[in-house]
Amino acid sequence: MINVAVLGASGRMGATTCRAVESAEDMALVAALDAGDEVAMAVRAGAEVMVDFTVPSATEANVHAAIEAGLHCVVGTTGWTADALARVDEHLKERPELGVLIAPNFALGAVLAMRLSAAAARYFESVEIVELHHPDKVDAPSGTARHTAAGIAAARATAGVAPSPDATTEDPDGARGAVVDGIHVHAVRLRGLVAHEEIMMGNPGEQFTIRTDSFDRVSFMPGVLLGVREVAMHPGLTVGLDGYMSL
Amino acid sequence: MINVAVLGASGRMGATTCRAVESAEDMALVAALDAGDEVAMAVRAGAEVMVDFTVPSATEANVHAAIEAGLHCVVGTTGWTADALARVDEHLKERPELGVLIAPNFALGAVLAMRLSAAAARYFESVEIVELHHPDKVDAPSGTARHTAAGIAAARATAGVAPSPDATTEDPDGARGAVVDGIHVHAVRLRGLVAHEEIMMGNPGEQFTIRTDSFDRVSFMPGVLLGVREVAMHPGLTVGLDGYMSL
Amino acid sequence: MINVAVLGASGRMGATTCRAVESAEDMALVAALDAGDEVAMAVRAGAEVMVDFTVPSATEANVHAAIEAGLHCVVGTTGWTADALARVDEHLKERPELGVLIAPNFALGAVLAMRLSAAAARYFESVEIVELHHPDKVDAPSGTARHTAAGIAAARATAGVAPSPDATTEDPDGARGAVVDGIHVHAVRLRGLVAHEEIMMGNPGEQFTIRTDSFDRVSFMPGVLLGVREVAMHPGLTVGLDGYMSL
Amino acid sequence: MINVAVLGASGRMGATTCRAVESAEDMALVAALDAGDEVAMAVRAGAEVMVDFTVPSATEANVHAAIEAGLHCVVGTTGWTADALARVDEHLKERPELGVLIAPNFALGAVLAMRLSAAAARYFESVEIVELHHPDKVDAPSGTARHTAAGIAAARATAGVAPSPDATTEDPDGARGAVVDGIHVHAVRLRGLVAHEEIMMGNPGEQFTIRTDSFDRVSFMPGVLLGVREVAMHPGLTVGLDGYMSL
Repeated sequence: MINVAVLGASGRMGATTCRAVESAEDMALVAALDAGDEVAMAVRAGAEVMVDFTVPSATEANVHAAIEAGLHCVVGTTGWTADALARVDEHLKERPELGVLIAPNFALGAVLAMRLSAAAARYFESVEIVELHHPDKVDAPSGTARHTAAGIAAARATAGVAPSPDATTEDPDGARGAVVDGIHVHAVRLRGLVAHEEIMMGNPGEQFTIRTDSFDRVSFMPGVLLGVREVAMHPGLTVGLDGYMSL
Repeated sequence: MINVAVLGASGRMGATTCRAVESAEDMALVAALDAGDEVAMAVRAGAEVMVDFTVPSATEANVHAAIEAGLHCVVGTTGWTADALARVDEHLKERPELGVLIAPNFALGAVLAMRLSAAAARYFESVEIVELHHPDKVDAPSGTARHTAAGIAAARATAGVAPSPDATTEDPDGARGAVVDGIHVHAVRLRGLVAHEEIMMGNPGEQFTIRTDSFDRVSFMPGVLLGVREVAMHPGLTVGLDGYMSL
Repeated sequence: MINVAVLGASGRMGATTCRAVESAEDMALVAALDAGDEVAMAVRAGAEVMVDFTVPSATEANVHAAIEAGLHCVVGTTGWTADALARVDEHLKERPELGVLIAPNFALGAVLAMRLSAAAARYFESVEIVELHHPDKVDAPSGTARHTAAGIAAARATAGVAPSPDATTEDPDGARGAVVDGIHVHAVRLRGLVAHEEIMMGNPGEQFTIRTDSFDRVSFMPGVLLGVREVAMHPGLTVGLDGYMSL
Repeated sequence: MINVAVLGASGRMGATTCRAVESAEDMALVAALDAGDEVAMAVRAGAEVMVDFTVPSATEANVHAAIEAGLHCVVGTTGWTADALARVDEHLKERPELGVLIAPNFALGAVLAMRLSAAAARYFESVEIVELHHPDKVDAPSGTARHTAAGIAAARATAGVAPSPDATTEDPDGARGAVVDGIHVHAVRLRGLVAHEEIMMGNPGEQFTIRTDSFDRVSFMPGVLLGVREVAMHPGLTVGLDGYMSL
């Protein structure tokens, strides 16, 4: 049984995490804390793992306090800079038995899509990405699609793969979409959708497609619980959930 | 048994048509003609229906000669102007028993996709189109996608449907694609693809998708044979294969 | 402004309908009624249209009372027999100005998928259906898939289309799925899905696919509102929402 | 420049391989051999790598002759038994610098789909497979789908994942398809298709899909060329193309 404290427990992700921890047979929710509560309360409640879904301005101090107190950390709060990550890495040298996971995305499907498409992309002549979201989203393309494109581009560069062929000479209205690190990325916005991504690859006579669909915030929970289960077995700082996945 | 003459029989579409007519149990190929041959030869061979897959500079004269000779016509050659169509319409008044079908696209799937998506689009808040082709195509988006968008836009305007919602304010690289008659159209180019189109519609909690995939020139043959079978039953000029389809 | 009364307002579909009517700019919710309330209350509240999402044992009496009181009816309650429908039809002869819509399915996507796939299926050599649902569903295939198959089979029979070709001689484990009215139907069950259907058609070198995805009960609301808006313009009994759709 | 000899050069796969080798900038086709020709001819022509697309009755002797002559081997011929593989393994101990690749499937997309779906499947509650082929195929499900299911089942068993949930109690016509190693497998047959496979996985609120489409025999060529390029760097016997892929 893993004793878990959730910080940011009244936020949307935090509240969903509390319910998921309570439902997991191998975990106990020992503290559901919020702004103003102390990490010390998590310790007194007997927590072994702290899950942080707070706000960018609070998360770094929370993690350092948790390390000080001997808690493993699973962090979903965004806004971590390279400098802030380096400070956590440094601090952990004093406590080499502790694990800290800082992950921008806990959706297993999205994480797998990024990782597996990067692995596969060197074997295909062409790669393009279509991301699809609800029409209230203000930015295009999505951050996930940008990361996916960057990962694919890096993997293809390392393997020495040529750019995807494209004979387009007439495209007066921009139908070919954005180009991110040399990869074409298209953004669809449709009422009824939530968050979806399709990575398409092609060779002569052959297509290969990876698609991920996220319909609901609960889709992040298997990833959060995976983090909680594995964090004690991965001492030191890990950035990105795929560091815990054996692929 | 329908006696068929094919003009442009040594071209790629014409040759494929000859094989399809020969394979059809209810048709006989009585003449396979080419540049320099006369429509009169089709008549002497006993043809009832002339199929024209020649060139833009020859097709109009062929059709008028066929009408003169009492042949029904199925025409897949492109390049017909509104004036040229009007002249055929006028000529047919002298021979009210004859049918002429002039169709820019004989792919049943593509024709159905255009027609059915226009019928469905008024019932959804959002509509977008993704067309996908081989990477040797020089123009984007495809003509089929432009026609599909135009048909959908016209149907939505007639029904008084509001534009698809879109909150995008940041799209520095053009990921949202082209806008054709108010409909977003995205063009994907991948090695291994031939010609594909996906029309996506959305309401709260619901998606509706029509997709058509064309892998090979033979995909036009069911449409050509449908035209040959039906042309005698549709006197006068018909533009577009959907005029023969009961939907 | 259309004045609407909802019967069964505290049920899940009824409550969702109340919210949808309140949100619609051209409608007013004048009565939200439940078991024990009288249709007469809807009349006193000034309703013109009654929406019935009650229970099979109550809906027929509700409709007759509404006809008596001069209300148009939109009915989503299931359990209507052919005899019960005939009694409504008979009753409406006394009130020829009233419209009654009784629809088993208000999901526009599903209704369109059934109707448009039946229209398209005669033009393709092969047709198969894959339906996909959450893994808590107890029956396979879904009723919607059975209806879709029946509609397609009837349309193909009318058009004289041959059965879909199938050379399978070895299928020891039943991978080819169910055969409903001559159409192969496959049922997929996956955690995370809600209700989805894909109708696939094929000719040489060509595929044509219609897909509908329903993620949420709110997906029925555009269909219910369409019924409310149109019912006064369709006097008499109409069974099925597609009777109000111009396709 | 890699000097390549093709055995079985007049067969369909062999002929396609000859063209692919000739088109590759880093390879030279030095011998195109057939039944009755000697492996010795490949040696005299200066070959470094022998590609074998012959017949089950000839391939084992070809490989042993090639090992004797000091050639690396890439073998696509089927029919290899465990005993035959063991004899090659034994023979290679005498020539530890030589590589032999024996692969039942050179379609990169299919190989990747098997490998990556096995890697991903432990992270999802549900998994099912739909394979889709042309209607002239006599067996269902396809061998590729069976292999994919077996690989997924083994990976899930190793990770201790529970069976996919399924509440089905009524399925009179077998719509739930085949069950292969505990994984539901559905076989679709449609005119116009070639060889396609979709592996679907689901968690609450989330879907993850891998799809592979093979339209043409040329789709095997990138895999064959990958084998030719890599065989010298993988001494010993390798079974399956994924042994050469870094995933």
